[in-house]
Amino acid sequence: MSVRAHQQPVLGILGGMGPLATADFITKMTQALPAKCDRDHIPWITLSQPGIPDRSESIQSGSDAPLPYLTSGVAWLAAQGVSQIVIPCNTSHFWYEQMQAASAVPILHIADAAVNELKKTSLPEAGPVALLATRGTVRTGIYAGRLKSAGYRVVELDDEEQTTLDNIIHCVKAGDVAPARERMQRLEAALHGKGVKMAILGCTELPLAHDRRQPALPVIDTSLALAKEALRRLGYLELEKAGE
Amino acid sequence: MSVRAHQQPVLGILGGMGPLATADFITKMTQALPAKCDRDHIPWITLSQPGIPDRSESIQSGSDAPLPYLTSGVAWLAAQGVSQIVIPCNTSHFWYEQMQAASAVPILHIADAAVNELKKTSLPEAGPVALLATRGTVRTGIYAGRLKSAGYRVVELDDEEQTTLDNIIHCVKAGDVAPARERMQRLEAALHGKGVKMAILGCTELPLAHDRRQPALPVIDTSLALAKEALRRLGYLELEKAGE
Repeated sequence: MSVRAHQQPVLGILGGMGPLATADFITKMTQALPAKCDRDHIPWITLSQPGIPDRSESIQSGSDAPLPYLTSGVAWLAAQGVSQIVIPCNTSHFWYEQMQAASAVPILHIADAAVNELKKTSLPEAGPVALLATRGTVRTGIYAGRLKSAGYRVVELDDEEQTTLDNIIHCVKAGDVAPARERMQRLEAALHGKGVKMAILGCTELPLAHDRRQPALPVIDTSLALAKEALRRLGYLELEKAGE
Repeated sequence: MSVRAHQQPVLGILGGMGPLATADFITKMTQALPAKCDRDHIPWITLSQPGIPDRSESIQSGSDAPLPYLTSGVAWLAAQGVSQIVIPCNTSHFWYEQMQAASAVPILHIADAAVNELKKTSLPEAGPVALLATRGTVRTGIYAGRLKSAGYRVVELDDEEQTTLDNIIHCVKAGDVAPARERMQRLEAALHGKGVKMAILGCTELPLAHDRRQPALPVIDTSLALAKEALRRLGYLELEKAGE
């Protein structure tokens, strides 16, 4: 039985990295869509595989352990007839080329979506930007190259700041969101004090720790950027939400 | 290519009814699971088909228009090797028997999960319970029979109250959550004034309109009840969350 027998899922989502980040991505995508009833919404399919080996640890130890899960996951989504695939996990994009090679349909790169979103802000290109991400994502260089090409100056975190960030990400994955929020607020304020003008939340756990109502620093939410870019490419952001 | 080549999704979720209710269900399920890292979480697959014809309107007009989407959706999920299927939409359970007949794996009935949750509360069985649901769900009788069998007295909404409720559900589906919350608070307070002791949020849009922090009435959240019951049946609620 093919899924095509009923409603075609146009978007494929490879999830579980982590599970709460996947839920957050789906929520943001749903809220970003200018729909007035169920039927205006995008049909999608999500495969959530939380058992994939840790991406950041694998990159740091030189292991490709997550790769078979990632390539077979995207290949399976492509086989269901989706038109576009997204992976709401920054670190897994270290294996982007291998995933794209395994998928017959385009995979939207999260860093492309995030840097496109950054370009829409009023931040001058010379304004210092901090990348808040796992050690694995920092090492992949998926943001550094794109930001430099676009003319942004990138401020690197020192080891103490990166350790604080690792701890925040771990707390969100463990469901301890309150302490993560407090530490995130202090880290953002410290970066702001050092002259940082904007932070890229380059890990999909971080929007869950960031205080959207009283932010200590303006941020690019890479989950939201990925959701909006996917909706845009699939023609679901053509209408503005009434009243906005 | 089979999904079994990588990580087996143990739970199948038929979503899109509505899209925000599906996101809410996934979020609640993730938060209800006593996990300390990604790998403790449940693997799942969701097919979100927001284009399914309106369930409540179909029931009221005597149409089975949603049925082909529902049966092929659950059959497709079953074919992916899931162990259990859930449908976070109360109204669609009008076609429960036909869906179960189309699926080789068990479908957990949302009203069974909700009434099991109600039985765990301190509400005496004779305490009046209000069913807040679409006109379609009310007409299906999926709650009335179960509540009566369990010894609960059910208070029916009058036509004006039901119209208010229809409007709240419509607002949530359209993404207008703020006015929905205000009307929901007033409706709950009015029911409380009439002696209602507990409300069943028998539509998965309603938890998004209910004020969890300052509830005017204690409620059973059928999305959360469905999530917890699914996790329990699949052995994912055996450990208590540390510190609770």
